[in-house]
Amino acid sequence: MVYMGLLAGILTGISFIPQSIKTIKTRDTTSISLFTYILFTCGVSLWIVYGFFAKDIAVFVTNLVTILPCSLILIIKIRESIK
Amino acid sequence: MVYMGLLAGILTGISFIPQSIKTIKTRDTTSISLFTYILFTCGVSLWIVYGFFAKDIAVFVTNLVTILPCSLILIIKIRESIK
Repeated sequence: MVYMGLLAGILTGISFIPQSIKTIKTRDTTSISLFTYILFTCGVSLWIVYGFFAKDIAVFVTNLVTILPCSLILIIKIRESIK
Repeated sequence: MVYMGLLAGILTGISFIPQSIKTIKTRDTTSISLFTYILFTCGVSLWIVYGFFAKDIAVFVTNLVTILPCSLILIIKIRESIK
């Protein structure tokens, strides 16, 4: 059971890496929803705080991995929207 | 603490709804990464199975909410890629 949670965490954790690479390369964010990435980044940040205080390593690490590419995509989306 | 997890779950759970609405309306998926949504949908599916067997309602419900918009985005992305 733990391995399933770990695999699920790894999959969701790394899943935004391809999107962040694509976004960095193309700078094209037209079809990306700003609101989705604001909500998602806030949610992932809360999961990190929750995982830290609940001492749940899987939740903490998974979301720590997820927040990096997500906030990158969010920053680029905001920059492209301002232009 | 439970409320923080619940709020985090709600935020990440609903976060893909704006993206799915945008994708359904515009059918524009050019800047969306297919690989991201394949990985993420697989990860979320595993979280649902994990939450079911671990009897973790928060994980189960959050990811059940997340899988709907995500798989919609994935299906549209695949369709648009085939065209």
